[in-house]
Amino acid sequence: MNDSSDTAASSSSDSTRDRVVAAAREAFARDGIAGARVDAIAREAHTSKERVYAYFRGKETLYEFVSAQEMNAVAEATQLDATDLPGYAGRVFDYFEQHPERFRITSWGRLEVTPAKHPDPENPTHASTMRKIDRIRRAQAAGQLDPSWDPLDVLAIVNQLATAWMMQVEMHPFISKYARDPSSSARRAAVVAAVERLFPAYSESKRLPADADSLE
Amino acid sequence: MNDSSDTAASSSSDSTRDRVVAAAREAFARDGIAGARVDAIAREAHTSKERVYAYFRGKETLYEFVSAQEMNAVAEATQLDATDLPGYAGRVFDYFEQHPERFRITSWGRLEVTPAKHPDPENPTHASTMRKIDRIRRAQAAGQLDPSWDPLDVLAIVNQLATAWMMQVEMHPFISKYARDPSSSARRAAVVAAVERLFPAYSESKRLPADADSLE
Repeated sequence: MNDSSDTAASSSSDSTRDRVVAAAREAFARDGIAGARVDAIAREAHTSKERVYAYFRGKETLYEFVSAQEMNAVAEATQLDATDLPGYAGRVFDYFEQHPERFRITSWGRLEVTPAKHPDPENPTHASTMRKIDRIRRAQAAGQLDPSWDPLDVLAIVNQLATAWMMQVEMHPFISKYARDPSSSARRAAVVAAVERLFPAYSESKRLPADADSLE
Repeated sequence: MNDSSDTAASSSSDSTRDRVVAAAREAFARDGIAGARVDAIAREAHTSKERVYAYFRGKETLYEFVSAQEMNAVAEATQLDATDLPGYAGRVFDYFEQHPERFRITSWGRLEVTPAKHPDPENPTHASTMRKIDRIRRAQAAGQLDPSWDPLDVLAIVNQLATAWMMQVEMHPFISKYARDPSSSARRAAVVAAVERLFPAYSESKRLPADADSLE
């Protein structure tokens, strides 16, 4: 049913909608919301502008859909584990290194979409953020994560560190000439080390060294 | 000479150029590079499109000028001191909180300008970054900053933490409802604490506790 074939001959409405979303994802990543053209998206998806508007009320709605889908994809691929935030940060680093265009989709939205005033549990992106905050809070309550930090600051700081080198493209020209080790794995290691220093991964052995010793 | 009067009657070419730059700064912050219109910038600056092109070859050159000016303004206002990176992060936080539109100017460039392949010392923004890297390197050599970090990672991480809450606008709706303390000063304190944990401010007393004690 969910035919994602690229052939123009494929005519089920599911696959047309899928093609619209795929073309929109590419256009939004490249040009942003104001910059993307619905007629170009329709052409790329082998359909009409009218058909695009029948699926999605307008360009903003189409962006919201693509953006939520991408947020969901990154959350699924990286799985925030509040007892191992350094591991999570490494996965986020890897995800965006493999899909730099997906990072751009979110970045345009930060500039072009007016943020909501209040969290809305019906909004899938908001619901995903709320689940992450809740995981952090529960790890703190369970003694697995330093409870002195506000869970919101933990989430913002970890996300921010994980994406440091994806965000700061203006620093890229300096890497090959000035970095001690210019490899991407050196950048990843620094990000993971920073998260580990702030929010160390929890392990049973850290809380129960006596018990761990007694097993030997 | 550097008359920044807003009156249309002011007719020195210096003040016309200043008005073009001011109008461009506002247009780029709001709409980005592709989104800004040179004719609207000219109208806002009480001059002609042709005059704008006489000062600046094109919209990209005008953006480069505005962007470099803003980079310079933030560097001047915040003064990276590699022996007190938490203090620096606090100043960067304050600067962008007071001038959120300036943060947007840089953010659009990250999406819309292809980064240079190599550092260019003639480029004032590159030169400013190279000075920052050098300050970090010298503080490390002087034993004032942990030398195990690559100076590039230090700079990227500190910048990233300082701007965490400016960047992640999608987290803003959650603050009033979920933060333990929703105040902006609580966000600032978290950012400064994170930088302090990673790169503690240096003081003579830290290096010479015995001498400090002997003074009592």
